[in-house]
Amino acid sequence: MEKNIAVIWGDCSSPEIVKQTIRVLDKVAEKYGHTFHYTDAAMGGEAIDKYGDPLPQHELDKCLAADSVLLGAVGGPKWEGLPGEQRPEKGLLRLRAGMGLYSNNRPAKIWPQLAPASPLKPEIVAQGIDFIIVRELIGGVYFGNHETHTLASGEKQAIDSMPYSEHEIERIGRIGFETARKRRKKLCCVDKANVLDTSRLWRSVMHRLQAEYPDVEYSEMFVDNCAMQIVKNPAQFDVIVTENMFGDILSDEASMITGSIGMIPSSSLGDGTRGLYEPIHGSAPDIAGKDIVNPTACILSAAMMLRYSFGLTEEADAIENAVNKVLDKGLRTADNMSEGCTCLGCTAMGDAILAEI
Amino acid sequence: MEKNIAVIWGDCSSPEIVKQTIRVLDKVAEKYGHTFHYTDAAMGGEAIDKYGDPLPQHELDKCLAADSVLLGAVGGPKWEGLPGEQRPEKGLLRLRAGMGLYSNNRPAKIWPQLAPASPLKPEIVAQGIDFIIVRELIGGVYFGNHETHTLASGEKQAIDSMPYSEHEIERIGRIGFETARKRRKKLCCVDKANVLDTSRLWRSVMHRLQAEYPDVEYSEMFVDNCAMQIVKNPAQFDVIVTENMFGDILSDEASMITGSIGMIPSSSLGDGTRGLYEPIHGSAPDIAGKDIVNPTACILSAAMMLRYSFGLTEEADAIENAVNKVLDKGLRTADNMSEGCTCLGCTAMGDAILAEI
Ligand SMILES: CC(C)[C@H](C(=O)O)[C@@H](O)C(=O)O
Ligand SMILES: CC(C)[C@H](C(=O)O)[C@@H](O)C(=O)O
Repeated sequence: MEKNIAVIWGDCSSPEIVKQTIRVLDKVAEKYGHTFHYTDAAMGGEAIDKYGDPLPQHELDKCLAADSVLLGAVGGPKWEGLPGEQRPEKGLLRLRAGMGLYSNNRPAKIWPQLAPASPLKPEIVAQGIDFIIVRELIGGVYFGNHETHTLASGEKQAIDSMPYSEHEIERIGRIGFETARKRRKKLCCVDKANVLDTSRLWRSVMHRLQAEYPDVEYSEMFVDNCAMQIVKNPAQFDVIVTENMFGDILSDEASMITGSIGMIPSSSLGDGTRGLYEPIHGSAPDIAGKDIVNPTACILSAAMMLRYSFGLTEEADAIENAVNKVLDKGLRTADNMSEGCTCLGCTAMGDAILAEI
Repeated sequence: MEKNIAVIWGDCSSPEIVKQTIRVLDKVAEKYGHTFHYTDAAMGGEAIDKYGDPLPQHELDKCLAADSVLLGAVGGPKWEGLPGEQRPEKGLLRLRAGMGLYSNNRPAKIWPQLAPASPLKPEIVAQGIDFIIVRELIGGVYFGNHETHTLASGEKQAIDSMPYSEHEIERIGRIGFETARKRRKKLCCVDKANVLDTSRLWRSVMHRLQAEYPDVEYSEMFVDNCAMQIVKNPAQFDVIVTENMFGDILSDEASMITGSIGMIPSSSLGDGTRGLYEPIHGSAPDIAGKDIVNPTACILSAAMMLRYSFGLTEEADAIENAVNKVLDKGLRTADNMSEGCTCLGCTAMGDAILAEI
């Protein structure tokens, strides 16, 4: 198989993890007889520095021309003072929208070897943490109108608006049901229907879809309650589907309870098979250039790309199994070290994973 | 001292906890020589049943005429099918707005006796959990425009809008700084300034206020990160100030990590001393009428009322100390039972607390 991958190297410590990921992809290509072509695309801080724009059209075009996009993480203190439109995050939001990636899939799964790193009590962890948050990614308050104006009284007022239309809800709702169908068949729609019109529209669309998926056990939960339940009893969840902002908050909380943010990949997909794959962690400016950042989440993001965009199941399994073996051997990076384990740097962790493929 | 208290008995199991709370208030009145007059006011399900409206003007007027308002909790399955405007929650939102209660104070504090009930690991709990979330309560998306219309394409679209003006931010920001000043002098403003205009306006107002409070260590955090940090390292927080919706989500998460939702009171205040005091838990329909619900959060809410609305510090201390002694004796309700403790019903817990005053 021959595939074109656009690679966004990202900012701060991100190029270090992307480098290890490319090594892993090359090893897989060699072993299974594939060819991956890489095209560098600039987004975020790098693009601001080069072009004064966090995602110029020509860089977005490179992503649209590729079969899929691999991303490290963008942003850092250097670009923090910039106005909204010119910040690295804006590049990420425009990339998501420009590629039509409405479905962000964030797994919260505990690696048994890392269970002790969870902030939750062992009794709770022992019940299992293995759920997926399906987050709507290109609608809601992220992409509504934002305005700041001066009122007659002379004071300023800002208004952010949160729009959702039926087709936007339906396509992500469907992903929720389909994802649940492939797993333990439980879908929970999280919203704030006691306050928001958008949530009530979500519910009406979800109820319509529910009829098509009688095999999936469907439930609804308020977002405030969900924020509690994720900590109290995460084992109750299989698939959560939710709007953009709630998904942002809940998926970060969910990733934290696994105790290993440096291990969590994510995929963002739209209607076709072209996706954007990135770790859920940030660009870790504080440890940039030290070769100590954990490359695993980025490497596992590449595995998701092989699985979901290229249909290369065996190859994806090979990467995930390699990571599992490395953990079994007690090899860790600084972010999830525990007693009796060996602490590796970023390159050495890349080496260790490569060696198991 | 003579005070008029409006009492909203609430729905489902709520009247049971309010009943115990009134007994405690009466005992305090007797012991310290005060007179509390109670006026019943209907809000939520009860008001819907009686008047077809979750908060008729005449009931709001009773609250406005009182020196303060004590509330149990409203809502329940009986009223769930109703349209938005007629639901019990709407009564609560109208009460908050009608009384001008912009500042909701939600403490997340662990009772040492209940530490084992926290879902977090003992190592994390041992570092201490004692922070307050100061939540803006009558602005933002809760009180912005909500609309659902049909687009030209024939599909429906809903839009919720989230407005904040400078004076709304300034008054709650000030409460944040003042609250921090009385405590460990650390204030963290939580927002999503990388996406929202309202958050950016919050920051600009907070920066202005910061100059007036040089003794308070001020920081800022994104809401998604905060949802992680509350679980990972709650000891880092002293006072969090945030907008309405983020406050709703984060305060529920924060209450859960204390392991004892049945113990957490809250106050909502505006410009004067008249406030609304209520437990943060809901109306627990599943255990209504069984005399097993935990009355402690409601009783502690009454203690907050004495302290913050009436300035009765000694009396508030008396109630809080009584609760502490009851816990020391190993007396619990079903929701936070643990090995070796004695499980009491609602009335018996009321008796136990009364006995210590
Ligand atoms: C960087 C930021 C705009 C982004 C988001 O809120 O979506 C990030 O938090 C994420 O979750 O990918
Ligand atoms: C009942 C609901 C409208 C309310 C809110 O969201 O404010 C509740 O969750 C709370 O936190 O008091």
